[in-house]
Amino acid sequence: MRATVLHSPGDIRCDDVADPVIEKPTDAIIKLSASCICGSDLWPYRGLQNSTGPMHMGHEYCGIVVEVGSAVKTVRPGQFVVGSFCLSDNTCPHCRFGFPSSCEQREFMSGAQAPYARVPLADGTLVATDEIPADDLIPSLLATSDVLGTGWYAADAARVQPGCTAVVVGDGAVGLMGVLSAKQMGAERIIAMSRHTSRQDLALEYGATDIISERGDAGVARIKELTKGVGADSVLECVGTQESMMQALNCARPGGAIGFVGVPHGVQLDGHGLFFAQKSLMGGPAPVRRYLPYLMDLVLSRTINPGRVFDLEVPLEDVAEGYRAMDERRAIKTLLRLQ
Amino acid sequence: MRATVLHSPGDIRCDDVADPVIEKPTDAIIKLSASCICGSDLWPYRGLQNSTGPMHMGHEYCGIVVEVGSAVKTVRPGQFVVGSFCLSDNTCPHCRFGFPSSCEQREFMSGAQAPYARVPLADGTLVATDEIPADDLIPSLLATSDVLGTGWYAADAARVQPGCTAVVVGDGAVGLMGVLSAKQMGAERIIAMSRHTSRQDLALEYGATDIISERGDAGVARIKELTKGVGADSVLECVGTQESMMQALNCARPGGAIGFVGVPHGVQLDGHGLFFAQKSLMGGPAPVRRYLPYLMDLVLSRTINPGRVFDLEVPLEDVAEGYRAMDERRAIKTLLRLQ
Repeated sequence: MRATVLHSPGDIRCDDVADPVIEKPTDAIIKLSASCICGSDLWPYRGLQNSTGPMHMGHEYCGIVVEVGSAVKTVRPGQFVVGSFCLSDNTCPHCRFGFPSSCEQREFMSGAQAPYARVPLADGTLVATDEIPADDLIPSLLATSDVLGTGWYAADAARVQPGCTAVVVGDGAVGLMGVLSAKQMGAERIIAMSRHTSRQDLALEYGATDIISERGDAGVARIKELTKGVGADSVLECVGTQESMMQALNCARPGGAIGFVGVPHGVQLDGHGLFFAQKSLMGGPAPVRRYLPYLMDLVLSRTINPGRVFDLEVPLEDVAEGYRAMDERRAIKTLLRLQ
Repeated sequence: MRATVLHSPGDIRCDDVADPVIEKPTDAIIKLSASCICGSDLWPYRGLQNSTGPMHMGHEYCGIVVEVGSAVKTVRPGQFVVGSFCLSDNTCPHCRFGFPSSCEQREFMSGAQAPYARVPLADGTLVATDEIPADDLIPSLLATSDVLGTGWYAADAARVQPGCTAVVVGDGAVGLMGVLSAKQMGAERIIAMSRHTSRQDLALEYGATDIISERGDAGVARIKELTKGVGADSVLECVGTQESMMQALNCARPGGAIGFVGVPHGVQLDGHGLFFAQKSLMGGPAPVRRYLPYLMDLVLSRTINPGRVFDLEVPLEDVAEGYRAMDERRAIKTLLRLQ
């Protein structure tokens, strides 16, 4: 089959690769309904992450099960499924505690920017729908696999509650999903930090009540101004740089909470500063599997439309253009058309 | 009056100083029933904290109000009061949000290792009892002012819940109060990390179910062993060094929470590591004023006996010996007899 391979930083191609096969009895093979490019795919694309040799890219997926290993019990060929980018057994103590993204058997999905993919730990990872969903719901269902689940976790870890004031740092796809999530969780005020018109528009559509274009100290000062000097109850950090983390910490009120979901690159935190700031900090790879059934229901009932975050669609053969557009911030998130 | 003054590292004395007077209409003057030495007093005593000139020491206090400023409304001369080491107005947004230790008008108490002390922001800071308490309750009431409130906050920030497994890193007075607090909050298993017999004994008396003498990686391995490889739900970090913080982080299960109350000295946290550890982190100066009424009730009803943490009692004149005993870990916590 044809699939996306990153050969070296900047060199991403659609190559001929071997079809995926069942390797373990707990595997499933799915035919993807669509795939997409993640903001985190840009780290190795930009050479900011060590890699050894060619990487099969893609970890967001949904589609039809075509084959299952002999041990798979909960999904069967013909079903439409969504899975998390974190593969998990859903039975270990960490999964049962609500953190499948730290599963004892955790693996990270790969190779999903392709028409077919192997999903390890299929029973623990995949959630099937009752019926094959309508085509127009595919982008939104695909979004639950990572980008929506990650934004949701940011809001959850930032303890968004009905009536609270939430700030979203980062206007990438995850940040926009954070806005949507905070809205669903009942935040009264949602302040999105963004300086790109198309992203601001989508943030407003998803429920942002205020848009701030200032960054760093000026951004913090604006948040303070908007909150009568108090700061935000909840801050969703959706970038992963030192600057964005400090911005998030400084935007929150004492006793407030920061949920951080941008994979930190070069972020260092001073214990003394964190102590006197007196803010709660929780982050990590999102426990998407925990949220999946609920988020899929929200999509299937057409309560939310996270698929709006895809503002570019290219055929798989043009995957390189999809990466370029995101790298240059011409696109928020690229959907890959597979058939 | 005679009071405790730190002239330079190691040089602590009982000196003649001016009697405290009302300086602002919101002040109160109290006659202390007892005072004590805090673990945090050892930082400047050991020269590990910058200081400019002589410091009037002491921030834990309880006693009888002898005079109040013209604006003070909620306490009056003759009442027995306890106050937090953090002075707060109890009316600002941070206080109302439950974080008086980040009050907009916050000051830190000083000069309480003395027979009399000035308490700024008296209305917001002091809590009076209905009656003058029995003498034997004074040490425990004094403990609510900081050491118990701080241990309580560690357990609260570490989200101790009924049935949970809690680990306490640090067997100083705060750590021991953390054990007591976790027990009160219903922790089923409380693992205290200690290698000093007298502290182990007190930890067991306060509700510890397991004692671990190993530290660092070996300590973490023991915790994992005791929790079937899972780690603890809640970890109370009551030291403030890089080693103790890493120990706390590594003891907690994914999705678990660390409450850190040891003032961090030289602690640096790596964002990437924190992300993949997936643990909640919350610390800071304890919002003791929020807990005070509840904790004072627990003492007055003789439900808890935090005063047992004082294992050395010296007259104020011998304050230097009190510091030495704590510095050399011969004493857990020193009570200063004032009359």
